Amino acid sequence: MVWAIVSIFVSLLSFGVAAYFYAWVTKLPTANHTLERVGALIRQGAFAFLRREYRVLAVFAAVVCVLIFLFFPKPIWQAESALDNLSMVGAYLLGSALSGLAGYIGISIATIANLKAASAARHGLAPSFMAGFRGGAVMGMAVVGTCLLGASLLYLLTQNTDVVLAFSFGASSLALFAKAGGGIFTKTADIAADLTGKVELGIPEDDPRNPAVIADNVGDNVGDVAGMGADLFDSNVAALAAAMVIAIPLGQIELLFCYSALGLLASIVGVLCAKVGKSGNPSAALNRGTYLTCGVFAVLTLLASLLFRFELRLWGATMIGLVVGVIIGLTSDYFTGDGKKPVKNVAEACKSGPAFTILSGMSYGLLSSMPALIGIGLAALCSYKLCEPLGGDYAVFGISVAAIGMLSIVGMIVSNDAYGPIVDNARGVAEMGGLGDEVLAITDELDSAGNTVKAITKGFAIGAAGLTVIALLAAFCEIVEGITGAAVTLNLMDPLVFFGALVGAVIPAAFSAMLIRGVDRNSQLMVREIHNQFNTIPGLREGKDGVLPDYNRCIDIATLGALKELIPAGLMAILATLLTGFIGGVQAVGGFLMGNILCGLLIAMMMSNAGGLWDNAKKYIEAGHCGGKGSDAHKAAVIGDTVGDPFKDTAGPSINTQVTVVSLVSSLAAVLFVACSLF
Amino acid sequence: MVWAIVSIFVSLLSFGVAAYFYAWVTKLPTANHTLERVGALIRQGAFAFLRREYRVLAVFAAVVCVLIFLFFPKPIWQAESALDNLSMVGAYLLGSALSGLAGYIGISIATIANLKAASAARHGLAPSFMAGFRGGAVMGMAVVGTCLLGASLLYLLTQNTDVVLAFSFGASSLALFAKAGGGIFTKTADIAADLTGKVELGIPEDDPRNPAVIADNVGDNVGDVAGMGADLFDSNVAALAAAMVIAIPLGQIELLFCYSALGLLASIVGVLCAKVGKSGNPSAALNRGTYLTCGVFAVLTLLASLLFRFELRLWGATMIGLVVGVIIGLTSDYFTGDGKKPVKNVAEACKSGPAFTILSGMSYGLLSSMPALIGIGLAALCSYKLCEPLGGDYAVFGISVAAIGMLSIVGMIVSNDAYGPIVDNARGVAEMGGLGDEVLAITDELDSAGNTVKAITKGFAIGAAGLTVIALLAAFCEIVEGITGAAVTLNLMDPLVFFGALVGAVIPAAFSAMLIRGVDRNSQLMVREIHNQFNTIPGLREGKDGVLPDYNRCIDIATLGALKELIPAGLMAILATLLTGFIGGVQAVGGFLMGNILCGLLIAMMMSNAGGLWDNAKKYIEAGHCGGKGSDAHKAAVIGDTVGDPFKDTAGPSINTQVTVVSLVSSLAAVLFVACSLF
Repeated sequence: MVWAIVSIFVSLLSFGVAAYFYAWVTKLPTANHTLERVGALIRQGAFAFLRREYRVLAVFAAVVCVLIFLFFPKPIWQAESALDNLSMVGAYLLGSALSGLAGYIGISIATIANLKAASAARHGLAPSFMAGFRGGAVMGMAVVGTCLLGASLLYLLTQNTDVVLAFSFGASSLALFAKAGGGIFTKTADIAADLTGKVELGIPEDDPRNPAVIADNVGDNVGDVAGMGADLFDSNVAALAAAMVIAIPLGQIELLFCYSALGLLASIVGVLCAKVGKSGNPSAALNRGTYLTCGVFAVLTLLASLLFRFELRLWGATMIGLVVGVIIGLTSDYFTGDGKKPVKNVAEACKSGPAFTILSGMSYGLLSSMPALIGIGLAALCSYKLCEPLGGDYAVFGISVAAIGMLSIVGMIVSNDAYGPIVDNARGVAEMGGLGDEVLAITDELDSAGNTVKAITKGFAIGAAGLTVIALLAAFCEIVEGITGAAVTLNLMDPLVFFGALVGAVIPAAFSAMLIRGVDRNSQLMVREIHNQFNTIPGLREGKDGVLPDYNRCIDIATLGALKELIPAGLMAILATLLTGFIGGVQAVGGFLMGNILCGLLIAMMMSNAGGLWDNAKKYIEAGHCGGKGSDAHKAAVIGDTVGDPFKDTAGPSINTQVTVVSLVSSLAAVLFVACSLF
Repeated sequence: MVWAIVSIFVSLLSFGVAAYFYAWVTKLPTANHTLERVGALIRQGAFAFLRREYRVLAVFAAVVCVLIFLFFPKPIWQAESALDNLSMVGAYLLGSALSGLAGYIGISIATIANLKAASAARHGLAPSFMAGFRGGAVMGMAVVGTCLLGASLLYLLTQNTDVVLAFSFGASSLALFAKAGGGIFTKTADIAADLTGKVELGIPEDDPRNPAVIADNVGDNVGDVAGMGADLFDSNVAALAAAMVIAIPLGQIELLFCYSALGLLASIVGVLCAKVGKSGNPSAALNRGTYLTCGVFAVLTLLASLLFRFELRLWGATMIGLVVGVIIGLTSDYFTGDGKKPVKNVAEACKSGPAFTILSGMSYGLLSSMPALIGIGLAALCSYKLCEPLGGDYAVFGISVAAIGMLSIVGMIVSNDAYGPIVDNARGVAEMGGLGDEVLAITDELDSAGNTVKAITKGFAIGAAGLTVIALLAAFCEIVEGITGAAVTLNLMDPLVFFGALVGAVIPAAFSAMLIRGVDRNSQLMVREIHNQFNTIPGLREGKDGVLPDYNRCIDIATLGALKELIPAGLMAILATLLTGFIGGVQAVGGFLMGNILCGLLIAMMMSNAGGLWDNAKKYIEAGHCGGKGSDAHKAAVIGDTVGDPFKDTAGPSINTQVTVVSLVSSLAAVLFVACSLF
């Protein structure tokens, strides 16, 4: 139990760091009143959306609570004590609440840090970077701290794997909807603002005349900060949960908490050390932080393993995860990075028109899935084979500690990821607050660094999700064996497995299609609203002093649209899992998970990287290459970027969560599938 | 042996029908000399490409022959007799040659029928339809006839499943390259011609001033006729081969040949009966032919099963395949069909700009994979369960006769599919031959009917490929069991299986990306050449009498580009299979095939349907909706169509063949994987 208790202390330490950063950022000065007014508008919009979203999700959670109480871990009429079912409900609620809390904390700090970073940019790049990064780090520390605290408390209180799964399911299901809802909101506003502002009217990004501009900045917060926070909270919890389900029978829970606590500690070190010199490069600073965290984690876990006599093979598996995570990140960086060959080629293709922009970006996106999926496959294979000599169950455990290894630095990853939208927002408020071109140049540079590191951290996130769901598949089999008492073989040649695999394979496709269609529909609505405002509000188009658009109408459209679209896609994925289970039993569900993982990872990588690639190709052209701003190539690049927006910020990253959620649903509902299925 | 011999006679009958149609079409009059000149240009270009392509493929085939002789079915130094290896070489060559022959026959008739259909259109729709359809039917009869003849001869001569697999591998590998090469050629020319002609210069499609116009028409023949013929030849052979491998130990070979022969007979009936009334609807005529063929096949096989006491459960499995094929076709038709909701919605989205065209088409494409994959899964599951009471091996055989059921009407499918490019070409030569607007209206109507039925027939083709590769996976396991003498279990939880699955999953993505990039690169080259000609040939742009562009330069660019790009993608897929096998052995290969099938089917459906959808949305707008020709919506739709071109005609349909080829490679090389692998 030692390490579970240590974990609690390390979590508390991370909260301390978060609180320190929060206070540090809040104390920074804000440049002027316009900035404060704009900041207040963004904050209000973000919290208004969050409240309405959480209200919808509360209804969903209440329904799930009733279902859990009735059916899990056993149907209530067969349960020995209603307490078992009640503790599942409690764990589910805790997971949901903590996930929601992570999003809430993220938005609280992000809507302050954006103003502070913009204001600090008047004094140069370094102070602005620190404001943005430490704002992001509040989120990073809070996410990982709550995750570890929740998991270790639950373990200390119940030592029951079912309860941990319910906790994880709570976090995941909330993340699924938060990510989808936020993603739809942010891209609806972003696309509508860009198309009407930059393309049609030729006004700059974040021009206050544009009715969608506040909605766009709200979107950065609810989509990229809150949604992403919930997403990584979920990955982290799921990886821990999967590992715990396998670790408990092996008696390896101490190692798990030890590695997780040290990972958080390493992230704290990395976050505290991140610093950019006066003439320095912000993306180098961010990457240095990531590598430092990796290094500290590797050393600390090695020392701990030697000291506490953990199996060194398991440590090796963790390192495999870590190294493969870095490799996947670097390949993503190659496919999307500014100045790399793919970005240059796509920018070049833009000169031949938008069709070539799409085709070249799409084909690079498809290609980019190759190193990532093969990397995940190799990581799983090597960590399995490395741990196999310890015994059969240890082999699978090896895969799951490889995932833990990849996610060890998640505190750093979240910090980097939250840094991006904060400085993006800082750019927006600086423009609207009239802080001048010098400040804009600095925030632009910080923003572009955010995009670059995003590729690497996204590689980690998708890689870790891949290993986690493999571990969850193993956990599913373990659970089924626990129920039936017989070994489970998911034979590919079993037609039930095959049927399940085909169904599972189409779910990520249908899921992402539904989200993209949501963005598509909503942004068309918003475009119409913007046209309407420009036509009916006199003086708005010309930018007459004192004439302001009705920002709230656009925020409303984005909010209502997101709330309407966020439930169906997620529900479809969950229902498809249950349906497959009730038709084909555990065999079909096993195949379902397999198909879901394969196609899910493929589509997620393709969409994330193609989207990032188009975004950077546009920026590359805007930097003066291939004809520069305003050229036909630029127009083509903007079209590519618009297509890429929902790819990389709505559908792509949501698929991760979708895959995790169906894995958890399967594990939880395994007992029902065993009890009744058509075949 | 009775039915194998009957099969030979039915094949000969189909040759007779083909010869009759060939003579019938050739005897039709040609309108004028310009038409003949244009026709000759197209024919020359097509045969020139075919010759050069076949020369490249001959080198490839020679290398493969040496490898087969050295290693298969056993390494030559371990073989009892070199004759075994030699007969494999012979079968491989036969498969390649017949596949090449099918393409050759197709082009021979298509480059005649296009002129005849254009000329016949002067006398109305019905005679023009007959010329186009009977031209296509020559191809249909030839493809299915050679396939059945080859398979039954090989069986009668050797009764060896290895030899049948080698035959199938010959057909598939040639098809892979022919489809890829033809697909790259046709879309290179099509895209370049459209972008420069329709978009930039505003001249009509098929305007003789456009230097790419002949290359475009050549492309219809080498890509859609020859490539598609080779592709369906391959599917058909592979389905038969997979079924034979499973049928021989079960003693069910008679049933197999019986059903195949009756399928061909039903197609002959369907082809002979296809007719359009004077005021009739050509797409109804084509679909009537398809349904008639299905009906005749169902009745004939039922009667034969009763008469010859075949297991009725197997007949049931065939019917499941047939019905599911029709259902998949109808859902594809819904997603791509003219006048259906998706086409209207995408056309509507075009009004908001090209980004929305792409996003909406893409999301429908992703959604459309759902009914197809679930349909394939259900067909496999139901046919398996239906035949399970006959015994374990019969269950798998059930899946493979379901594939045979889906492909029973392949003669009709090929006829319909070849009809499309023939009438498309007829439109082109009518325009260039100056046959007037009335003729163009008729050929336009025939062309659009070709597009509509294509959706249904493509559904059949992909569905059948799905079932076939499932059967090939079973055949692979059967072969491995034959080598090792132990039952093969491909357990999903085995990390080797999982590793293989992840690698297999990315192959179709990388494969299609390589093809799309090929088209992308080449058409940019050709666009430059066209610009060059317009700038340097005086009087060309204005259409001065007697000034003609240099058509051959464009044909050369398309040819060289296609030849350069066609080998790498296919080779990558084959090498990845071998590498996976040598790393992870048969377990990894089993997983590889599974991952390949899942993601391959998904991407193939997505690309085919999104492409078809964009094409029809463009046509819908051109018919006067959403702003009509020349509007911004139309421009957006053209961009969508350009993106869709390589999706639906290069990458999408090639993936089918890619999946089949790697399945066959795995089966053939199984003995090597068993003998040596890293893990």
